[in-house]
Formats: sequence, C-alpha cells, structure tokens
Amino acid sequence: MRESYHDELAANTNDVVTMSALVRTAVERATAALIDADLAVAEEVISADSKLDALHDEIEQRSFNLLARQAPVAGELRTVVAVLRMCYELSRMGDLAVHVAETARHRYPDHAVPDPVAQQFTKMATIADKMIATAGQTLVDRDVEDAKKLASQDTAIDDIRAEQFRMLLSDTWQYGVEEAVDTALLGRYYERIADHAVAIGSRVIYIVTGEAPEGEDWPKAF
Amino acid sequence: MRESYHDELAANTNDVVTMSALVRTAVERATAALIDADLAVAEEVISADSKLDALHDEIEQRSFNLLARQAPVAGELRTVVAVLRMCYELSRMGDLAVHVAETARHRYPDHAVPDPVAQQFTKMATIADKMIATAGQTLVDRDVEDAKKLASQDTAIDDIRAEQFRMLLSDTWQYGVEEAVDTALLGRYYERIADHAVAIGSRVIYIVTGEAPEGEDWPKAF
Repeated sequence: MRESYHDELAANTNDVVTMSALVRTAVERATAALIDADLAVAEEVISADSKLDALHDEIEQRSFNLLARQAPVAGELRTVVAVLRMCYELSRMGDLAVHVAETARHRYPDHAVPDPVAQQFTKMATIADKMIATAGQTLVDRDVEDAKKLASQDTAIDDIRAEQFRMLLSDTWQYGVEEAVDTALLGRYYERIADHAVAIGSRVIYIVTGEAPEGEDWPKAF
Repeated sequence: MRESYHDELAANTNDVVTMSALVRTAVERATAALIDADLAVAEEVISADSKLDALHDEIEQRSFNLLARQAPVAGELRTVVAVLRMCYELSRMGDLAVHVAETARHRYPDHAVPDPVAQQFTKMATIADKMIATAGQTLVDRDVEDAKKLASQDTAIDDIRAEQFRMLLSDTWQYGVEEAVDTALLGRYYERIADHAVAIGSRVIYIVTGEAPEGEDWPKAF
C-alpha cells in the first residue's frame, strides 16, 4: 500500500535521521578500529555500510515517487530536493568511515598510526560525531542557528589537521613514510566527513530560508 | 522572459556539457601547473573554479523551477533528478582540480612531486580527461554503452595509483616524507575525479534505462 503524501515526506526525514545515526556509529567504530588496531570492529564497519547504501537508494526512490505523483511545491519541494542531496552526503560519509576502517584492516596487526597521531584522530572523531548529530537533528528541528554553527565546528577539525601536517612534515617526525602517508589520507577522510556535515547544514538553511547555500563544497585542501 | 519547458531541459543538458568542458580544462591545467611548477597556471585554475560553482547553482535553480512549475514525469523527471546530482559531481571535480593546483602553488617554486611520480600523474590526467569527455557526452547521446565503459577506464587510474603506493612505500623511495604525502593526497584527488566521472555515467544509465545505479559511490580506498 502506498504511503500518503505526508507520511512519505516524514519517512524521508526519518530515513535521513537514521542515516545520520548510522554514520555516527560508523565513524565512532572506525576510529576505535584505527586506535585499537581492532580487526573485528573494522570488518563490522565495512559490512554495515550496505545499510547506508540501501537507505540512500530508498530515499532516492521515494523522493522520485513523491516528485512524480505529488508534484510538491515551495518548502516541501525544497525539502525533497535537499533530502536528495543529503542522502548522498550521508552515504559518502559512510564510505569515508569505511576508508578509515580499511586502513586499520590493511595495517593489522600493526597500529596504522602512532600514538600522538591517534590522539588527534580521537579528537577529530569526537568533533565529527557532534557535527553529524547536529546535522541530522537540524533537519528535524529546522534549526538555522544550529546549522550555522556547523561551519565553526568544522574549523576545529581543519585546525587539528593543520597541526597534524606540521607534525608529520617536521624534522622531529620519528616515524616512517608509511605512517605519514596513512596519517595524511586519514586526515583527509575525517576532514571530508566534517565537510559533508557542514553541507547538510547548508541544505537545512536552504529548506528553511529558501536561500541557496553558497560555497558549501569548498573545503580547504590542507 | 521564462524559457519554455523544453528549452529549460535543453539548457540543463547544455550546462552539464559546459561544466564537463570546464572540468576538463581545470584538470588539464592543474596537472600542467603541478608538472611544470607553474604558479600562474595554478592561480588560473583556482580562480576559474567560480564559473563551475555558478553553473552548479544555475542548474540547481533551473531544476527547482522545472520541478515546481512543470512537474515533469518519467524520463524527463529522471533527467532532472539525475542532472541535480551530476552538477554536484562536476562541481566536486572542479574542487579536486583546485586542490591539485593548490598543491602546486603551495610548493612553488619547487616541484611538488618528483619526476617518476609526475609521469604517473600525467597518465592519470590523460585517462581522466577522456573519462570526463565521455561522461559529458553520454548525457547528450544517451549512450549506455559508453557510460558503462567508464568503469573500466576508472580501473586504469586505480592501477596507476596502486603502482604509486608500491613506489612510495618501497625501500627504494629516495625522496622525503613531504613528497610521499603530496603524492598520496594528489593520487586521492585524481582517483576521486575519475570516480565522479563514473558516477555521472551511472546516472546516464539511470536516465535511459530507469535502473537505479548501484555501488557508484564505492571507490577503492587504495
């Protein structure tokens, strides 16, 4: 039986919230796998990603049906269009968490990153977790102020990454090329996870205000 | 004066083709800036990116208007929805080319990468250029066979990247940590550019066949 129009809109929002909860779990567990060199947890993150992909496909299909059959306008159309983008951002965040888990798996039984770097990733993951929670919740609350805060939280991640680069490019870097390369790439994955959270916030601003987001896809390279 | 329905659909396709041409130029010039340590060319790539962002916004606005006023169905709705995703992929490809250019600028007047690595990036850029051209053209031609070929071209880029990792992690790597880190991140940017081209191809397959693309966002980590 086909869901009614408003049930379908609500299901879209619920699925975005579910995706953001799954992404939080993925990032948290991928970070644990990385820090603890835990192969089983890494494998779990990798196999759990299919749930995110399935939800992405479901949201896309439901949105398509909504557009085809209901022809929403104004704020509801903005929501459908924004959710189409958000589900993609969230599936990408899941892929990035998988990359973190794959790095842990690749280096197992060794730890992929040395201890001072691991501490930085723990901090980045904590900030990212807060950002992903905010990103998911802003869609429910239609909270423009919370959505705007995401950009400054993102700066904290960029700062840790800049510090990380200084560390691994300094003469006092006592580890190898492999550790440096892993650190740089992992830093990129966390940075992108945070960027996607900011982009989701921009879309919420768009839904509420009708203002097109600007420069959302302009993360700093490093 | 508002464009007619079919003019708007055609304008969307034209803008995607224009974006893919701009992305080809961006990748080609960013690679030249990297290989030649050419600061002026790097700056050009960085400032030219605003054109891609503007086209992204224009396509999004036009698509929104199309959905609001014309309520397209079936193949035309699929095209509008797919183009919304494509313009994002293309704007991301532009951002990635900017990251390549920023790396060249950051290391100037030095060359960011040593000669053997530069040769690999030249090869990756050549393959990517072909892929971006194909991705743009498949939307015009509705050519499912061409779109499917993108995945195998992508494998060639992944192969070069794997070779690159073996090189920089081997005992014979004669350059520093900085060169290794730059190489790894640059490799990631080229890999993602190619992934986005594959994703655009998947969307064309979706437009023509109505089959939802599968696994398009599943690039290998390394």
